[in-house]
Amino acid sequence: MKSIGIGIIGAGVMGAEHARIIAGEVSGAHLAAIADADLSRAEAAAGGAKALTDAEALTADPEVEAVLIASPDATHHRLVLAAIAAGKPVLCEKPLAASTAECLEIVEAERRAGRRLVQTGFMRRFDPAYRDMKQVIDGKGLGDVRILHCQHRNAAAPSWFTGAMAITNSLVHELDICRWLLSTEYTAVTAIPSPSGDPALFVFETEAGFLVSVEIFMNAAYGYHVHAEAVCETGTVSMAQPALIRSRHEGAEAAAFPQNWIPRFRDAYRIQNQAWVDGIRDRTPPKDASTAWDGLVATCLADQIVGAIAKRDRLVFELPPRQ
Amino acid sequence: MKSIGIGIIGAGVMGAEHARIIAGEVSGAHLAAIADADLSRAEAAAGGAKALTDAEALTADPEVEAVLIASPDATHHRLVLAAIAAGKPVLCEKPLAASTAECLEIVEAERRAGRRLVQTGFMRRFDPAYRDMKQVIDGKGLGDVRILHCQHRNAAAPSWFTGAMAITNSLVHELDICRWLLSTEYTAVTAIPSPSGDPALFVFETEAGFLVSVEIFMNAAYGYHVHAEAVCETGTVSMAQPALIRSRHEGAEAAAFPQNWIPRFRDAYRIQNQAWVDGIRDRTPPKDASTAWDGLVATCLADQIVGAIAKRDRLVFELPPRQ
Amino acid sequence: MKSIGIGIIGAGVMGAEHARIIAGEVSGAHLAAIADADLSRAEAAAGGAKALTDAEALTADPEVEAVLIASPDATHHRLVLAAIAAGKPVLCEKPLAASTAECLEIVEAERRAGRRLVQTGFMRRFDPAYRDMKQVIDGKGLGDVRILHCQHRNAAAPSWFTGAMAITNSLVHELDICRWLLSTEYTAVTAIPSPSGDPALFVFETEAGFLVSVEIFMNAAYGYHVHAEAVCETGTVSMAQPALIRSRHEGAEAAAFPQNWIPRFRDAYRIQNQAWVDGIRDRTPPKDASTAWDGLVATCLADQIVGAIAKRDRLVFELPPRQ
Amino acid sequence: MKSIGIGIIGAGVMGAEHARIIAGEVSGAHLAAIADADLSRAEAAAGGAKALTDAEALTADPEVEAVLIASPDATHHRLVLAAIAAGKPVLCEKPLAASTAECLEIVEAERRAGRRLVQTGFMRRFDPAYRDMKQVIDGKGLGDVRILHCQHRNAAAPSWFTGAMAITNSLVHELDICRWLLSTEYTAVTAIPSPSGDPALFVFETEAGFLVSVEIFMNAAYGYHVHAEAVCETGTVSMAQPALIRSRHEGAEAAAFPQNWIPRFRDAYRIQNQAWVDGIRDRTPPKDASTAWDGLVATCLADQIVGAIAKRDRLVFELPPRQ
Repeated sequence: MKSIGIGIIGAGVMGAEHARIIAGEVSGAHLAAIADADLSRAEAAAGGAKALTDAEALTADPEVEAVLIASPDATHHRLVLAAIAAGKPVLCEKPLAASTAECLEIVEAERRAGRRLVQTGFMRRFDPAYRDMKQVIDGKGLGDVRILHCQHRNAAAPSWFTGAMAITNSLVHELDICRWLLSTEYTAVTAIPSPSGDPALFVFETEAGFLVSVEIFMNAAYGYHVHAEAVCETGTVSMAQPALIRSRHEGAEAAAFPQNWIPRFRDAYRIQNQAWVDGIRDRTPPKDASTAWDGLVATCLADQIVGAIAKRDRLVFELPPRQ
Repeated sequence: MKSIGIGIIGAGVMGAEHARIIAGEVSGAHLAAIADADLSRAEAAAGGAKALTDAEALTADPEVEAVLIASPDATHHRLVLAAIAAGKPVLCEKPLAASTAECLEIVEAERRAGRRLVQTGFMRRFDPAYRDMKQVIDGKGLGDVRILHCQHRNAAAPSWFTGAMAITNSLVHELDICRWLLSTEYTAVTAIPSPSGDPALFVFETEAGFLVSVEIFMNAAYGYHVHAEAVCETGTVSMAQPALIRSRHEGAEAAAFPQNWIPRFRDAYRIQNQAWVDGIRDRTPPKDASTAWDGLVATCLADQIVGAIAKRDRLVFELPPRQ
Repeated sequence: MKSIGIGIIGAGVMGAEHARIIAGEVSGAHLAAIADADLSRAEAAAGGAKALTDAEALTADPEVEAVLIASPDATHHRLVLAAIAAGKPVLCEKPLAASTAECLEIVEAERRAGRRLVQTGFMRRFDPAYRDMKQVIDGKGLGDVRILHCQHRNAAAPSWFTGAMAITNSLVHELDICRWLLSTEYTAVTAIPSPSGDPALFVFETEAGFLVSVEIFMNAAYGYHVHAEAVCETGTVSMAQPALIRSRHEGAEAAAFPQNWIPRFRDAYRIQNQAWVDGIRDRTPPKDASTAWDGLVATCLADQIVGAIAKRDRLVFELPPRQ
Repeated sequence: MKSIGIGIIGAGVMGAEHARIIAGEVSGAHLAAIADADLSRAEAAAGGAKALTDAEALTADPEVEAVLIASPDATHHRLVLAAIAAGKPVLCEKPLAASTAECLEIVEAERRAGRRLVQTGFMRRFDPAYRDMKQVIDGKGLGDVRILHCQHRNAAAPSWFTGAMAITNSLVHELDICRWLLSTEYTAVTAIPSPSGDPALFVFETEAGFLVSVEIFMNAAYGYHVHAEAVCETGTVSMAQPALIRSRHEGAEAAAFPQNWIPRFRDAYRIQNQAWVDGIRDRTPPKDASTAWDGLVATCLADQIVGAIAKRDRLVFELPPRQ
């Protein structure tokens, strides 16, 4: 069976992590090349594969059969369009692009290309805990969902984090995963920031009728913690604390939280990347993957929330017509 | 040491429960009499004590040194005033009275009496789990509170429940306990009912600045479940699942929920009643007890929320001047 | 209703705790007197009650209608016999007496008195968690028990603890509670101490056929932890971690252990003492209370285990004929 | 990078599972061939790879660079020797062989071959929960281990299970994993079967001094449950319940158990197989893998326990001299 050559653009934290996964944990693919403006960083992540500084050259390389984009957000739009133009499948870290208009260009470019080429890297859709929750929700054994409570807590926001990034960087994950988990679209949001702005609480209304409450806390200090609880007609389903072991020490029984999203979603990234590779091989994109349209929706909603956060009023969302 | 004679008004579910507690689980007091419009019900709850139909006669009885009111809500105002007039300490099940105006009459009557006679039966203040949470919060080991999330879930609303009762009967407990837990006052609320009205989500702002989110679900089906999680600057503190045992059976490890508030708050009622009796004996009302003013605040806020629930707008609370 | 006057012998840690419970948390009784060789200690625990140094005088005092013994172990035998001689109900902290022969004297003295006067203070029988477990086991919903695993862990053994005390002081609780929990008698034990002697593992065989494994760890360091898991034909039932709250802080979610047996079994002591008082009033000893015979069995088994611990062989128990 | 061709012998439950993993989840390898006496079963598991009935032919096939044995236990000895003779790395499902003598032949054949070719399929060494436990134990943050408690519970023993298979099939996993987890060797065992024989309790002594207690329950009914708790000098570390989600329904909060070992150890098998493949590529066997010698130890100890189970006496183990 032929192994698919993957080219990765970006050799930062996520690019290096993707390189590790593609090279060492995915069946049916290999790391063909990795590009980064900083060549030494590309080389460090490349293992035996090619290291480049030129992303365009990587996309054009005939040994690169599919492209994985983990470069700075501002470059996504251009690089995804280049992959589409080259007719190569592309998995792009979120956000798909920086604005609704740019996302729309990508959606349209893919439509013109005549086949699904774009996957947005909302990896949570492949997280086993979210998938177990979705299976319970879809199975209807607990009846319809009435309210979904979500918490997204980072131990500490990076120093370069601005207020809007809590929305465009963190809330955006909730925007995507809850649409997928609940198979519905948001219609409106009420944003209620705490006086210091962090945490903030968002209450979404949905086409299906139920509510989604989301707490975003960028400086929760105690650890990285993503939690969801679906409250349904006859019961609830929620995530278990993700630790595999428990210890008893110094007066307490304790279970550890991961430090950040990488250990928490390690399996999700691997499974996402395997599904992406399988989809390329089978010419059938993975059923649950986030599409270009999904990437657009996330960016579009986040943009409107950023615009509305200062006002406390309920915001009714607007989306471009579905392509 | 002299035992204090307690008279109970009302021999329904809660009246009978209080009779059981006073007669069998409280030190320094005994059940002197119990009154109910239905004499047979009063007799069933009385054990060897007097059973009456006339609440006024009970309050006037010289063997009744303190009065515990567990009669229908509409009678509370009149009966509390009668106890104050008789100069007898009174513990009144919530609500203290049906309207802010009636509560204010009680507050003023007590003020004129010149000493603390009234305790409102917000028993959660004596619940060991809430007290453990308060100790952690007040200890500041986790820094200041940033947001408090509360869930109040009943297995099923009684058939006679109307929409407003979710607020006046259930939310009212959250109104009282969170003020006490966080040592602050609410300033405003945003109410976001789900389309079916149940559950409903309420987001409170407080003088201290942080937020309080409360989900009220009257028909949660799976059991009676009261939960609170305080999210603080450097950590969180929340209630553990209240079961004492866990079983493994038929493919799962499970811990049971209580069926309703009585088993869940059995200890809270006992400890509240003991503290009330101790306070009478020592002529020092229990430090944490809910006062007449606290009863007024709960009724006053609930009334405003009932009036505002139809409108989705943020409601700024108004309170009469603190007496 | 008449209040029963209780006399307590011993004003150490447990005596003072019992005085607090009798004076402040039990219905239908009051603390009449407390005796301790150290008068100031007796006075400190007495509240307004009489403080004495003479235990015999306390037992003889006509205002003392029932006696609670919490004095040093070596005095139990003599003091229990004195209470029986005085015809007064007596609740004796474990051990009932220091040897099987002494216990047998008590059993026979009580038999000659013609009525149940003695209760051995194995308070765990009144612990809500053990009672919930017993209800599940007796309900047979999980089928018959196949093995019961127990852990008894102290944070640290007191300095005056000798090896045998792990058996006579700690294991003895397991000896009593498991007989009660499982409604059977032990037939044999295999003792397997770890090389350092602490922890030690004991595997009991029972008349009913199933096994009981007990780990005793006197210096478990992390906290005071008593745990039991009954493994039955179709499932298991075990104790939940006893904390009422959980906190998340510094990278972990944690639930605290109590420091020692007093907070862990606070409710058990209160409920035991209330049941004892109720039994005196109703002239019907509490159904589940540990009798003089139960006290004898615990001491008798512990004695045999102490004698056999050095040998690794299986020990078949011998008991005097049931009185 | 060259992909390694794997040949699998046996297309039953485990063989098919290994085929799925090698073909779809492992980087750097592909399924070259699969052999089974039942050709249709081999074909069903083969995907596009070769399907054979002849295991010898598979081992000899030049496209098969490494052999994975998942055939009936009785064939392991012969097939492992054949792989060694062919100079091909071999991963053999446990047991390595049916007797100590046969295992010894394998150990000696590998020694003569001059390099590590054999890995025994004790996959638990790659289970993330066991690895997290080992990291805590080896880190010594809790001090030395004092006792390790293990439970191995199957929902129901297959109909063809005989008593000895509880030892050779189930206990054997505990024999291997605890040696690895604790970095020590067993010196003796006391076996204490319950009267019905199931469950049985085994208490092991070790060279390092501490104890290991193991409960084997072949018909635990409630689910498949493997648990371990290491009790150390200053604390404990144990496995968390492995469910990723929790549900609340019909009066209880519940977390599901897997039905059998395949979902429980799905990750362990994948990680084991990836490590095996990586080790072949790097010519460096995985550090933690179970060797031929480890396979011998497990079989040798299990054999002695089977011989001794009827006798209740303590059994001192004997092992052939370490090769």
